[in-house]
Amino acid sequence: MKNILLTIEYDGSRFSGWQRQPKQRTVQGELERVLSVLCGQAVQIAGTSRTDAGVHACGQRATLRGEFGIPTERIPLAANHLLAGGKRGATGDIRILEAKEMPEDFHARFNCVGKTYRYRIYNGNEPDLFQRDYCYWLESPLDAEKMRRGAEFLTGTHDFRCFMAAGGQEPETTVRTIFGFTLEERDAAAGYAGRGARDGKEIVFRVTGDGFLYNMVRILTGTLAEIGAGKKSPEEMREIILSKDRRRAGHTAPPQGLYLEKIYYTQEDMLIGMK
Amino acid sequence: MKNILLTIEYDGSRFSGWQRQPKQRTVQGELERVLSVLCGQAVQIAGTSRTDAGVHACGQRATLRGEFGIPTERIPLAANHLLAGGKRGATGDIRILEAKEMPEDFHARFNCVGKTYRYRIYNGNEPDLFQRDYCYWLESPLDAEKMRRGAEFLTGTHDFRCFMAAGGQEPETTVRTIFGFTLEERDAAAGYAGRGARDGKEIVFRVTGDGFLYNMVRILTGTLAEIGAGKKSPEEMREIILSKDRRRAGHTAPPQGLYLEKIYYTQEDMLIGMK
Repeated sequence: MKNILLTIEYDGSRFSGWQRQPKQRTVQGELERVLSVLCGQAVQIAGTSRTDAGVHACGQRATLRGEFGIPTERIPLAANHLLAGGKRGATGDIRILEAKEMPEDFHARFNCVGKTYRYRIYNGNEPDLFQRDYCYWLESPLDAEKMRRGAEFLTGTHDFRCFMAAGGQEPETTVRTIFGFTLEERDAAAGYAGRGARDGKEIVFRVTGDGFLYNMVRILTGTLAEIGAGKKSPEEMREIILSKDRRRAGHTAPPQGLYLEKIYYTQEDMLIGMK
Repeated sequence: MKNILLTIEYDGSRFSGWQRQPKQRTVQGELERVLSVLCGQAVQIAGTSRTDAGVHACGQRATLRGEFGIPTERIPLAANHLLAGGKRGATGDIRILEAKEMPEDFHARFNCVGKTYRYRIYNGNEPDLFQRDYCYWLESPLDAEKMRRGAEFLTGTHDFRCFMAAGGQEPETTVRTIFGFTLEERDAAAGYAGRGARDGKEIVFRVTGDGFLYNMVRILTGTLAEIGAGKKSPEEMREIILSKDRRRAGHTAPPQGLYLEKIYYTQEDMLIGMK
């Protein structure tokens, strides 16, 4: 019995999220459809994180278990060909980056020791049409230094209930550990497909933790954005966390700025990945 | 009677091209639908260039003629709101950047003295999933310096029949003037939404001329790509042009790398725009 760990990248903009759902185009559904063709049998995969509609991934993971004729190392190329509609030179909106055999007892979710999410904000006078599905556009100028100071309060082990969206399943605990974050500011023009020089900047927030509550990164980012815009002070972040009150935190930033960047199975990988 | 010149940006990936067509989503069709709402009457627009399906624009132009209640300067904001589905903070895949009243005899196409197109190539070992609709991915390493040398033969007034796709309407003449070009190479990682560091580079080719034949920029780019990959020599470009033979030129590069960047109505604008 093979237990194959897949590393997966996808553009979430045209999917109803990760999880398989009848009559909807989902990432898991598409992958299972294509892998079933390659494996010559109906297969299911177990993903690490259930990303929402519109959320992207550069390092999602999933396991595929069974006895298959196809050599494991051939899976990425063959699957990517099918995922691109079988057209030569074309690229689909999902790609398998790697397929690797793991011990039988390995589980994509339970063995995970940490994750890094990235959130991209485009901050400029005008929206960037070519980035509308890949960034959160905010018009009012953001002070990245203030956002960084606010984010400092996140590191460590805290009850993060204030950053959990209502409506999800109640987790066993709302305590999580944030190992670290980075917040970079860069000129948006460099990556711009459109008219060239723009006045805008991009703010990229990366956060690594042992796990995240439902919508946690998006609410976190919404709170940081309000700090950056001067609506909240950086020090308020501390009070918000202590309050455990969702109403004290900021708004939920939209899905298109969010990327599931990396998933770690060892502390060592995490230390490398956080750099 | 107002004669309003619109400057328009769009992401061509989900359109069947510019030109209005029954039962298809086109840029002209979408704009006319929205402008008809704003103007309180069924309106039509006359565009400068008919871009193909998948081709983008950062500076398309079109004129709108009639007597309208809405002040001209209000058109962009109001139209962009409707083009984004009326959702606050959202961005649609078309945006009107400017609306400006022109003399009655001004025509978006006939008054045009030049255009700049841009073509983006992503050159790397692996495709960039997040750029699949915005770049042409080429795997084999391209020598930008050779491409630049090949492109030198394009400048000036030539019969460019060799770069005209079959099947289009036969133009009055296949002679065109290329005023200039730029070919830049840059690290692709800077603009990459995905995993961060990549081995790839981006090659951006910009070409300005008094007009272009059907598919001319795409065939030109395909030819330059073959020069960059060492399949043709830079000097062959000269022979290809002199041959007037489509079969001597390279392949037609795909639409997603092409951007209609600027349209000029005065020589002065063109000199500024070409910089």
